[in-house]
Amino acid sequence: MYLNATDFVGRAAFDRTARMDGFVASTAFDRPTLVIDSDLVAENFRALRAGLGNAAIHYAVKANPAPQIVALLAGLGCRFDAASRAEIELCLAQGAAPAHVSFGNTIKRERDIAFAHEAGLTLFAADAEEELEKIARNAPGADIYLRLIVEPTGADWPLTRKFGCARDRALPLLRYAAELGLTPRGLSFHVGSQTREAAMWAPTLDQIAAVWHAARAEGIALDLLNIGGGFPAAYGGALAHPTSYAADVLSLVTERFGAVPHLMAEPGRAMVADAGQIAAEVLLVSRKSDDDLHRWVYLDIGRFSGLAETEGEMIRYQIATARDGEETGPCILAGPSCDSVDVLYERRPVALPLSLRAGDRVVIRDCGAYTSSYASVGFNGFPPLDVVVI
Amino acid sequence: MYLNATDFVGRAAFDRTARMDGFVASTAFDRPTLVIDSDLVAENFRALRAGLGNAAIHYAVKANPAPQIVALLAGLGCRFDAASRAEIELCLAQGAAPAHVSFGNTIKRERDIAFAHEAGLTLFAADAEEELEKIARNAPGADIYLRLIVEPTGADWPLTRKFGCARDRALPLLRYAAELGLTPRGLSFHVGSQTREAAMWAPTLDQIAAVWHAARAEGIALDLLNIGGGFPAAYGGALAHPTSYAADVLSLVTERFGAVPHLMAEPGRAMVADAGQIAAEVLLVSRKSDDDLHRWVYLDIGRFSGLAETEGEMIRYQIATARDGEETGPCILAGPSCDSVDVLYERRPVALPLSLRAGDRVVIRDCGAYTSSYASVGFNGFPPLDVVVI
Repeated sequence: MYLNATDFVGRAAFDRTARMDGFVASTAFDRPTLVIDSDLVAENFRALRAGLGNAAIHYAVKANPAPQIVALLAGLGCRFDAASRAEIELCLAQGAAPAHVSFGNTIKRERDIAFAHEAGLTLFAADAEEELEKIARNAPGADIYLRLIVEPTGADWPLTRKFGCARDRALPLLRYAAELGLTPRGLSFHVGSQTREAAMWAPTLDQIAAVWHAARAEGIALDLLNIGGGFPAAYGGALAHPTSYAADVLSLVTERFGAVPHLMAEPGRAMVADAGQIAAEVLLVSRKSDDDLHRWVYLDIGRFSGLAETEGEMIRYQIATARDGEETGPCILAGPSCDSVDVLYERRPVALPLSLRAGDRVVIRDCGAYTSSYASVGFNGFPPLDVVVI
Repeated sequence: MYLNATDFVGRAAFDRTARMDGFVASTAFDRPTLVIDSDLVAENFRALRAGLGNAAIHYAVKANPAPQIVALLAGLGCRFDAASRAEIELCLAQGAAPAHVSFGNTIKRERDIAFAHEAGLTLFAADAEEELEKIARNAPGADIYLRLIVEPTGADWPLTRKFGCARDRALPLLRYAAELGLTPRGLSFHVGSQTREAAMWAPTLDQIAAVWHAARAEGIALDLLNIGGGFPAAYGGALAHPTSYAADVLSLVTERFGAVPHLMAEPGRAMVADAGQIAAEVLLVSRKSDDDLHRWVYLDIGRFSGLAETEGEMIRYQIATARDGEETGPCILAGPSCDSVDVLYERRPVALPLSLRAGDRVVIRDCGAYTSSYASVGFNGFPPLDVVVI
């Protein structure tokens, strides 16, 4: 369904969404609802797999834990990156083999490690002594990969230092893992969410390769490289086709690491973001004063009910209305709650039709990732985002 | 239980929490749990009421919608400020009279207005033409108060322009409400969350009083003033006793407005914040490199599971451990999820015992407001905050 491998842009993506568009247009929803097109999830998985050679793809379940998505991917041979006991249970319940689920959170409850070990998981992430000790106590002999901090790249959403250890601690920690009876298998990192161009991976891969080769030179038999996530979603912009993006990343990896026996990738956003759209409703359109140049548009969904990634106006969602094509004007977009931080876009207002009014349907595109599971249980009494998989 | 009316400080608050402290210390929790002491909620209500004269206190349900809290307050004669249909249903189910519940969100779903009207609610907030039209269509003849934008004060968390209309639009909107067959009763505003000193209300009250007197001079028979929330919680700092704070605010109001026939206040945080504490657990303590001056401490609760108000490090919670009194060092505090923005305090690290380690209980104080209902449904597979009312 992609038009071609080098020209996957927003316009092409629009054609891909015909099935979702039709379903949303013909359905009444009582509350904000995320509609997921399972065909697009499958297509995204296949597109990434086609570019990633022999790499094992572990879907980052946190991106969207809808059981139907997990079951679909398990059936296609996808593996899983789980952040918690609940995500592990979800994967196993939806048909994933325990050996195909990695426990990728470097911050695990000790009793969850024991649970995972008993459930048959064998691969765990760590970035600190205490985490290795917890794993050694509760999953003796387990395979370990060590997460490293990398210097910031040009990702849209660079990660903080929250995850990973400094690179000069890698060898001591790998040795410590072995001392504890664990099996240090490899390294992981995260290049940063929404890394828009494959070439941006190069400096990060250089940093990791230096550690990798130093470890092997010292006789630590690493055979697993987890390149993490960072594969982008378009959000209306122009992007390389995922297969060509993934193939370019794979080339950069191979140049630096040779043929890695066990290569892993953990895409989340790129698997589901453009496979979902949210049907929402305008609650109010107003001007604060007579000379205001912009209007305020209030939706029935906001930062606390599914659009958490608008924090800092980081993710810029495309918004469609039934009045598109009419004259537009700049709007500040906000959520329905009585919380003053529940504003989606203010620094960069959104152009919306001047005729927009309360009761109008809006469709928020590319919302398949990091929306439904972020929704609050009921802030201000607004229910969490509903999810429908078609 | 307050020591005296002018010296209500953190130390005194500590003594007040003995019942919660005892319950938390003697209870094992399987996941992060908010414990609410209902006696303290009742005490806070009575303390505010004692200072607010004839004002009707409408508890801002969004601060903590635990049904037990709503039932307790309804029994004490408290009224309610509801933000949504679900909050209205909650109040009515817990014994509030419909006439004692105001629909205070200026951004309402049109069908929720109809629901509220049929349920017997008579008082609605608005700040725009379209909202007045929605109310007129669905709650004909209803009482209206108009929310105004005020200029920023010294509140810890000044509100944005999300809510309210510019003051020069007040009279036209009040007239428009009357044209629509509604009953324009009064004005409302919000001085800003956590307004620590009563004197800080004066400039805001001056702004509102100018509109109030102009409206009355033009024959608009306003008789209701809603002074909103903004009543502070201590969060470990020194504060005036709530009764004396409220009395000082009331004096400032009376100086400017005379004896208002119907005065309303909408405290939320000040009613419940210091009535709750969260029992949580340390998941990991680590250093990122050998020369790091601070440690990273990861808890089983973070920004997406109840501590949303740490965004921008705005609310500074006090944290107690069983090792308090031992030597401390600076820590960056973070949540358990794989999200890099799930960091609680980094710019201003927290001093915690050097011996702190995974598995240790931590108690987060003054967590009764804006925690449980902000928690996500299950981001990263972590369950939402549990709530226990004692």
